Amino acid sequence: MAEYQVPLKDMSFILYDVLKADQLWQSLPALAETVDRDTADAILQECAKIAEQEVAPLLRVGDEEGVSFDSGKVTTATGYKEAFQTYVEGGWTALGGDPAYGGMGMPKMITGLHEEMLCSGDISFSLYPTLTAGAALSLAKHGSEELKEKYLTRMYAGDWTGSMCLTEAHSGTDLGMIRTKAIPQEDGSYRITGNKIFITAGEHDLAENIVHLVLAKLPDAPAGPRGISLFLVPKINVNDDGSLAEPNGVSCGSIEHKMGIHGSATCVMNFDDAQGFLVGEINKGLACMFTMMNYERIGVGIQGMAAAERSYQNAVEYAKERLQGRALTGAKSPEQPADSIMVHGDVRRMLLNMKALTEGSRALASYISMKLDISAYGEGETQKTSESLVALLTPIAKAFFTDLGLESTVTGQQVFGGHGFIREWGQEQLVRDTRITQIYEGTNGVQAMDLLARKVVASKGTLFQPFAEEVKAFVAENSQAELQEFVAPLAEALGDLESLTAHLIEQSQNDVNILGTAANDYLHVFGYTAMAYTWALQAKAALAKVDSGDDFYQSKIKTARYFFARLLPRRLSLIETARQSSEVLFDIEDELF
Amino acid sequence: MAEYQVPLKDMSFILYDVLKADQLWQSLPALAETVDRDTADAILQECAKIAEQEVAPLLRVGDEEGVSFDSGKVTTATGYKEAFQTYVEGGWTALGGDPAYGGMGMPKMITGLHEEMLCSGDISFSLYPTLTAGAALSLAKHGSEELKEKYLTRMYAGDWTGSMCLTEAHSGTDLGMIRTKAIPQEDGSYRITGNKIFITAGEHDLAENIVHLVLAKLPDAPAGPRGISLFLVPKINVNDDGSLAEPNGVSCGSIEHKMGIHGSATCVMNFDDAQGFLVGEINKGLACMFTMMNYERIGVGIQGMAAAERSYQNAVEYAKERLQGRALTGAKSPEQPADSIMVHGDVRRMLLNMKALTEGSRALASYISMKLDISAYGEGETQKTSESLVALLTPIAKAFFTDLGLESTVTGQQVFGGHGFIREWGQEQLVRDTRITQIYEGTNGVQAMDLLARKVVASKGTLFQPFAEEVKAFVAENSQAELQEFVAPLAEALGDLESLTAHLIEQSQNDVNILGTAANDYLHVFGYTAMAYTWALQAKAALAKVDSGDDFYQSKIKTARYFFARLLPRRLSLIETARQSSEVLFDIEDELF
Repeated sequence: MAEYQVPLKDMSFILYDVLKADQLWQSLPALAETVDRDTADAILQECAKIAEQEVAPLLRVGDEEGVSFDSGKVTTATGYKEAFQTYVEGGWTALGGDPAYGGMGMPKMITGLHEEMLCSGDISFSLYPTLTAGAALSLAKHGSEELKEKYLTRMYAGDWTGSMCLTEAHSGTDLGMIRTKAIPQEDGSYRITGNKIFITAGEHDLAENIVHLVLAKLPDAPAGPRGISLFLVPKINVNDDGSLAEPNGVSCGSIEHKMGIHGSATCVMNFDDAQGFLVGEINKGLACMFTMMNYERIGVGIQGMAAAERSYQNAVEYAKERLQGRALTGAKSPEQPADSIMVHGDVRRMLLNMKALTEGSRALASYISMKLDISAYGEGETQKTSESLVALLTPIAKAFFTDLGLESTVTGQQVFGGHGFIREWGQEQLVRDTRITQIYEGTNGVQAMDLLARKVVASKGTLFQPFAEEVKAFVAENSQAELQEFVAPLAEALGDLESLTAHLIEQSQNDVNILGTAANDYLHVFGYTAMAYTWALQAKAALAKVDSGDDFYQSKIKTARYFFARLLPRRLSLIETARQSSEVLFDIEDELF
Repeated sequence: MAEYQVPLKDMSFILYDVLKADQLWQSLPALAETVDRDTADAILQECAKIAEQEVAPLLRVGDEEGVSFDSGKVTTATGYKEAFQTYVEGGWTALGGDPAYGGMGMPKMITGLHEEMLCSGDISFSLYPTLTAGAALSLAKHGSEELKEKYLTRMYAGDWTGSMCLTEAHSGTDLGMIRTKAIPQEDGSYRITGNKIFITAGEHDLAENIVHLVLAKLPDAPAGPRGISLFLVPKINVNDDGSLAEPNGVSCGSIEHKMGIHGSATCVMNFDDAQGFLVGEINKGLACMFTMMNYERIGVGIQGMAAAERSYQNAVEYAKERLQGRALTGAKSPEQPADSIMVHGDVRRMLLNMKALTEGSRALASYISMKLDISAYGEGETQKTSESLVALLTPIAKAFFTDLGLESTVTGQQVFGGHGFIREWGQEQLVRDTRITQIYEGTNGVQAMDLLARKVVASKGTLFQPFAEEVKAFVAENSQAELQEFVAPLAEALGDLESLTAHLIEQSQNDVNILGTAANDYLHVFGYTAMAYTWALQAKAALAKVDSGDDFYQSKIKTARYFFARLLPRRLSLIETARQSSEVLFDIEDELF
């Protein structure tokens, strides 16, 4: 496997040339004091070192050794503990945290790239700190002052990690059915009892304590999702002075054996009369959890893209070295026994698919991060618009990037031919590791319904408008000839997306099932269109610098061209099928399956 | 995991209602004596028992235990040996074999379905007998009388298995570069020396001897593919009376650790001055091997479809039982805590994709098998036309069915949500096992080039014509109103395929690279169009029986409808991208990747 190299140049291009992050930071008072380009560059460079030198080497050992389970104790693979310690000592657990409790307050535009680096290194390892960061975010937003002083500070410090306990065996997507109970105590705390499954980092040996955020129901709670509350349940109870007291009623019953991310502990967690503390308001737990989930969902999207990046780097290195066959136009390296497989059109297709989809995902992810930062730190209309865009684009980031992540890792494996199937070459692991990203944090089908039904149609298109307007403004402002090859197809794609959106809003009045049958196609049409927008932004930024003599900008422009010629047309078939009535799916009785 | 049930009813429908196999057999003298409907039904039913009861239970144990390697000895997983013995005792190793040497002479229409059953049961297990059958085919066609008497009879008897030794570390797709040497001996035999990799069933404990077919070069052979000869190299030498003599210079150096098909031994094989016997003519080994490879390529396509079938069966069972959420149109099972996930449009989409693609693949596979049988046993123009169709459709069967196989197994895994990622539920294994089918026996990229460059363009479209004519004749003959919903889009799809074909033949005169850059898209456009043809055939046959009251025919018609509405439109995007010039892929210098 090629040594992983963080694509710092592309990250820098996207941040500053495409999205003008430095200007944005200066314009937002809360960020102006925290971050500027020098700080950001220093952070990204240091983080790249950690990712390349500490995390990336864990990928294979985590897969081969997995995590081991013995009488409730979970041990991570060789090197995980040391790498986590180095990570903590570098202060990375505080990166995006609230400065009032010891966090560094870095914007999502930085933490998103930091997540990408970790995940390209090893998704399994990344889950321990990123779930902690997600849990911390939820706690920072909804926790009491006391809980924040006691727990949040220690999570930022890297002393303790976090987990997110939602799923139960009978209750995954449909959380309204959970059975875990919370009994109020006289001291204001609760006693939590129930069983949770699929709990990532629910138990491990990387930190001395684990802060579980647990969904449970009070005895008198209303049925369904409006009766769910959120609780902080520490693995080990904490004294008022912050020292550890006796273990809480929390135990890990077993760990799952999975297709991939073997280095990540996926735990069955048993809560047996465990002490817990309410986070946020009673029966509003789902909303609190969504703070975390939206953060995690973008993060999961980034995982898919990150694995694709690593697969691409490996595949390019292999393709350049592998000699097999001759160019159709005649031998390109007649002095060699065969040409490198870079001469084959189908190999170039595979590599360019990966390159264009991955760089496109990175740009779109950073764009969404930017909107997240504006919605967190901005004000007025711009802030509101950004919030809408984040709501709209979060399910796309999660589902589209992870679907493309699987595609790209499978493609990267294919470039290796037979060697792609062999474990020691590493490509097949990336496929196995990436596969989970389409499933967890809400399956991609759930994301598609979130986008189409809960966001676009429920808002009667008003959530969709800010996106359309921004793209239209860009199209109008960039009518110069040299940009037409990018802007014209973008305008066409947006027009088609608008028609499709209007059609589905209209159609769903009489055929509500179309929301379910069109959702997946719609999300992908939207994804390619949004990616076309960020590719047009990239092409514009690259054209402005193409005279610098740096090949990087040539590569950008040509990759943009490839995207518009060969990938954006994928939307055509999807539009065709999304428009079909739901009847063809619902007219078949269940027994006929 | 659901218990695997062989879809005998669908197989029977395709054989008799759609393809009129019984009439065909009667019309071909060589087959009229060998097989009729009763015989075929008895064979398929017996084979289904073996697949369901003996093979299917091996799937998980083969994955968990894998094969073990110790000092050159390979041991298969628990139960493989016994199942193989049962298989041999049932006479299944003789099924498709030449009757002159103890084979049963069954047509490919039967053996193809037999392969599907084995592969749905366990692809890993299936590889031992199917590679043997492939090697036997090559030997039957190109071996000397003496070799056939000595080896072929024992392979049909199930005493010995076969392997296919092509690939070397530096030489996979590009076999012209192989280095294995064959030195002629005075007695007419050869001494074979060299190393082969990725040799499926190269060594194992299922049979007492293994008959390797090995590609090697004579000392004075011309460079490249025209200097390759084929040799039979037994693991253990065989005396004239058929008894085993001393071991030959053949050893297994190691086995690979792979993403999937853990139950199949993938071997590094070392030939060290091993005695070998020429099969076919000197320097014409590649042609001899292609007899086997074409057979295997259709077989690999069937593997992909077979895994999809099993994944579908599991997913349907799970979806019917899993309660989560409510129908958009209101609770369908208000007495339950939630509806089954069958109510969700996106779940139905996933299941119907699997159903339509798998049944479509089965019908198309059987159609190709039929053409194989006609080209083997027919005469005159019909025989010639069938040969053309087989040449044309073989790369499609291999690549299209396996790409759809991966899609369907991934989809089936997705239906399970989080459980799909957990090993014990079995869905993730099907994904891992299926992934190899896109790679081995010529990667799918190689298949696409075989179709577009070697078959369609090299023949200036003449190989394509018989297909187009057959479809057009069908369209013309079936103009009745009730068939229009199937026939009209089929005609449109064929028209588009014809235009695309003409465009690529024309375009490649000036832009030869377009063959490589369009090949993958072209193969899939062709695949969907060919599948549309077999779906139209199926719809017609089902309509003829729909008044029988049997739901099966309703299901067929509705699934056909789904295929035309939701899957055939996939070709639209592919046509758009296949038409793009190759420049956008070749204009990027290698350094810019």
